[in-house]
Amino acid sequence: MVSERSSKGRKLKPASPPSSTTTFILPHMARKCSFFKQALAAVLFLFAIYALFCTFLSPAATSSSTSSIDDLVFVSRESSSSLDTASSQAVPSPVRIYMYDLPRKFTYGVVEHHYRARGATVPPSDVDLKYPGHQHMGEWYLFWDLSRFDADRVGSPVARVSDPEEADLFYVPFFSSLSLIVNQGRPAGTALSYVDEEVQEELVAWLEDQKYWQRNGGRDHVIIAQDPNALYRVVDKVRNAILLVSDFGRLRPDQASLVKDIILPYSHRINTYNGDVGIEKRKTLLFFMGNRFRKEGGKIRDALFQILENEEDVIMKHGAQSRESRRAATQGMHTSKFCINPAGDTPSACRLFDAIVSMCIPVIVSDDIELPFEDVIDYRKIAVFVDTTSALKPGFLVSLLRGTSEERILDYQKELKKVKRYFEYGEPNETVNEIWRQVSQKLPLIKLMINRDKRIVKRHLIGPDCSCLCTNQTGGIATM
Amino acid sequence: MVSERSSKGRKLKPASPPSSTTTFILPHMARKCSFFKQALAAVLFLFAIYALFCTFLSPAATSSSTSSIDDLVFVSRESSSSLDTASSQAVPSPVRIYMYDLPRKFTYGVVEHHYRARGATVPPSDVDLKYPGHQHMGEWYLFWDLSRFDADRVGSPVARVSDPEEADLFYVPFFSSLSLIVNQGRPAGTALSYVDEEVQEELVAWLEDQKYWQRNGGRDHVIIAQDPNALYRVVDKVRNAILLVSDFGRLRPDQASLVKDIILPYSHRINTYNGDVGIEKRKTLLFFMGNRFRKEGGKIRDALFQILENEEDVIMKHGAQSRESRRAATQGMHTSKFCINPAGDTPSACRLFDAIVSMCIPVIVSDDIELPFEDVIDYRKIAVFVDTTSALKPGFLVSLLRGTSEERILDYQKELKKVKRYFEYGEPNETVNEIWRQVSQKLPLIKLMINRDKRIVKRHLIGPDCSCLCTNQTGGIATM
Repeated sequence: MVSERSSKGRKLKPASPPSSTTTFILPHMARKCSFFKQALAAVLFLFAIYALFCTFLSPAATSSSTSSIDDLVFVSRESSSSLDTASSQAVPSPVRIYMYDLPRKFTYGVVEHHYRARGATVPPSDVDLKYPGHQHMGEWYLFWDLSRFDADRVGSPVARVSDPEEADLFYVPFFSSLSLIVNQGRPAGTALSYVDEEVQEELVAWLEDQKYWQRNGGRDHVIIAQDPNALYRVVDKVRNAILLVSDFGRLRPDQASLVKDIILPYSHRINTYNGDVGIEKRKTLLFFMGNRFRKEGGKIRDALFQILENEEDVIMKHGAQSRESRRAATQGMHTSKFCINPAGDTPSACRLFDAIVSMCIPVIVSDDIELPFEDVIDYRKIAVFVDTTSALKPGFLVSLLRGTSEERILDYQKELKKVKRYFEYGEPNETVNEIWRQVSQKLPLIKLMINRDKRIVKRHLIGPDCSCLCTNQTGGIATM
Repeated sequence: MVSERSSKGRKLKPASPPSSTTTFILPHMARKCSFFKQALAAVLFLFAIYALFCTFLSPAATSSSTSSIDDLVFVSRESSSSLDTASSQAVPSPVRIYMYDLPRKFTYGVVEHHYRARGATVPPSDVDLKYPGHQHMGEWYLFWDLSRFDADRVGSPVARVSDPEEADLFYVPFFSSLSLIVNQGRPAGTALSYVDEEVQEELVAWLEDQKYWQRNGGRDHVIIAQDPNALYRVVDKVRNAILLVSDFGRLRPDQASLVKDIILPYSHRINTYNGDVGIEKRKTLLFFMGNRFRKEGGKIRDALFQILENEEDVIMKHGAQSRESRRAATQGMHTSKFCINPAGDTPSACRLFDAIVSMCIPVIVSDDIELPFEDVIDYRKIAVFVDTTSALKPGFLVSLLRGTSEERILDYQKELKKVKRYFEYGEPNETVNEIWRQVSQKLPLIKLMINRDKRIVKRHLIGPDCSCLCTNQTGGIATM
C-alpha cells in the first residue's frame, strides 16, 4: 500500500471561494445530537405523512392529473443482494459516491508543485495553498464540493459515503488539468522537479492496486480530465471509467462517448453580467477577443479575422490570457450583442462560457462541438450555430446577425439569463450539482454493463460488442 | 385526421386481472376534494419540514454519513424554456408520459380480430373483450397500467399526462405481438380479414401524421414489439423510438441497442411457486419441457435432448404450448433444482421466466441472450450461464450441476425468491413499474440527442456519428 501522506483531514482554500466565510474541513466528524429536535421531527413527520396520504393520495384529490404528487416523493432503500438498492423504488435516492483519499501528490501536491515552478513560497499548511484559477478548474470545485459537510450538500444528486462498500460510484480527485500546466511557461531545458506524465502513470499504478478499481475494471469510477490533453498518456488505461471532459477532440470513440462520459463546461474567466436584457448598452454587433492562431480546428480563427476585422460594428482582437485582456474581454462581451466562438485546438473553447455569463449571444463556429448539460439545455435558444464553410463566406455572418430583429435578440438574452447559473462553478449548488446529476444519470447503464460483463460466456462475435445511439442528421448551415 | 372510433373512454377486461375487483375506467374525471384534510396536511407538513430541517439538515445530525437524508427527497418542478423541467432538482420527478389515443383498430380492434379468427362471438361491448393470455402480453399490462386512475398509479416512475404538450415521452399502445398471432393456427389458403403487415403499415402512416412524432422523428416515443417478429415490416421506420423488446435477435445494431432500448421479460405462463427455499421436494436435478425443434439459435435444443434425455435425474420433455403441457411444466419446474433454458428461435425464451417464478435455478445456454432489468439484477446470483460449446460436451452439464452443494443451491433459491416479483406482470406495481423505471432512465440521453440533433450543422464526418458503450469481455465457459 501507499505510504505517502494522504489528503485526508487537510484543508485547502479555493482561488475563488464560493463565500468568504467558507472553511474547508472534511466531513465525517462526530457531532452532538439533539434528542428533542429528533423526537419532534419524528412525531410531526408521521402526522404529516398520514395527512398527506389522506389528502393527496386519495382519489378525491387526484383530479388535476398528478401535480399533487410531483412535488413530493418518498423513497426508501432496501438491503441488497442480487438486487441493487435502486430497485423497487419509484425515484432513486441520491447516488452514493466514494471519494478516494488519494495520496497527497495527486491533489495538494500538484498545487504545491505549481507554486514551486513559479518560485512562490509554499505555505507551511495546505490551508493556505490557494488553488490557482484557470479555465479547467472544475476539478477543484468537484473536490471541494465532496469535501464539504454533508449538511452543506443537502439536495445534491450524489451523497458522499465514507465506506467504499456502500458506494455506487468512486470519484478519483486527481488534479489532472493542473498537473498538465505545472511547468507551463518554463523555459525549455529547465530542470523539472515535476513531470506530469510520470504522475499520470503513478496514478494508474495506484488505481490498479485498488480493490474497487479491480472489481469492475474501473467502470464505476469517475475521473476528471477536463483539459483535452489531461491524462493523455494513460487514457487507454482509464477509458472504462466515466470521464469528465470538455470535448472528444483528442479522444477516440472507443475511449469516450456521449453515452458513457460527461461534457463539462469550462470555468468562465471573465465577470458575470448581472444586468438585465436589453440592447441599449450593446452597441457592438459581434465581438471576439482571444488567440488568433491555433492548431487544428482553431485554424479557422485567422480566416475569420480576415473576413470580419474590417467590419465597422465588429470587434476582433488578438489577445492572450492575462488579467488585462480579461478586463478588456469583459468590457467587450458586456457591450456586444453577439460573441463569436470558433473552435480552439479542439472543438470546445472556454470563450463560450464567458459569452454565456456575459449574456452575449454566442455564435458557435465549431462543427464538432459537444455541449455540457445538453439534456436540459436547448442551445438553439441561447446560441446561433453556423457551419464553418458558411461562416467563412465573406458577408454571410454579418448579414445574418445584422438581420436579426431586436425582439429575437431579446429572446436569446432572456434565455441566457435563465441558463447562465448552470455555468457558475463558484456557486455551491449550480454547476457542480448539475455535473453530479449528469454523473448519477449514467449509473443505470454502468450497472447494467457491470452485471452483464460478469455473466457473459464465450460467444462467436462478428464485430465488437457495442451498444450505440446514433444521429442521422446531416445538419443545416445555421440554426437561426 | 383519422375518423375511426378511438380507444378513449373504453373499458377492457384483462385475461389475468391483477385483482378481481379492479375496474378499467379511464382517469381524468373530476372528483370532490376535502378542504379540511388539505389544510391539516399543509399545516403539519410545514411543521414537519421545519423540524426536519432543524434536525436532519443541521451539522449536529449528519455524523452517521448521509443515511438520514436518503429516506426523504423533496423535488420541485419549474417552468421551462431553454431549460427542461428536469433541471435544477436533485432527483427527477416522475417522467411525464402521454399515451396516444390510438384508433381502435390498433388496440381493441386487434383483440376483436383475434376472437373472430377463432370463430368466437365478439361481445357487444369492449368491456367484455378479454385480452388473450400469451407470453408477450406485456403490451396489455402497460396499456392497462396507463389506463388506471392516477390515484392507483401513485409511486409509478411515470405520470400519465392528458396534454401532449406536457409530455416527456409518448407511448404507442399498439398490440403488436397480438397482431402477429391473430391468424396463427389458421390453415393456409384461408381468406384473411386481418393482415398484420397491413396494420403495421397503417400504424406507421398514422404515427407519421402526428405532430409529436414529426417533432423529433419519434425519438421520444416508446413502442412495444415484444415478440421478436412484431413490427418486423416497419421496424426501420420506428427505430428512433425506445423499443420494448425481448432480445435483439432479429434487430440490427442500427435498429436497437441496450443504450436506447429496453429488454422486457416474457409473461410467465406457469404458476408461481409460493413455497420456501429447500431441496426436499425438488428430486429432479434438471428439467426441460418445450419444443425440441426450433430454428436458428434453437437448433441446439435437439442436441441437448440427445445428451441429456438418458440421464436418470434429468427430465427432458418435448411439448407444445397448451393448458395441459403448462400443467405438466408447472409440476416439473416446481419439483426440480435446475431448469435448462436453451435459446429459442432468437436468444431469449419465455421459459426463463417460468423457471424464475418456479424458483427452479435457470441454466442458461444462450450465448447472446440479453436480460431484463440487468442494472438492478445480478443474474449470476440467480442463474447459471454455460456457453453453448461446453453445454454440448457430453457429461459437462450434469457433472457441473451434480457437483453443486446444497448450500449453493439454497443461496440461488434465496435470491430467486427475492427477485421473482420482478417478473409478475399481474401485480400492478411490480414488472410494469420496473419497465417504466427503465423507460424513465432513458430520458436524459434521449433529450440530449433530441437537442443535439436540432443544432447540428453540416460536418465532414468520416464514419457514422454514434455514441457507444462496449464490452471487451471474452467470457468464460460457465459462471458457476
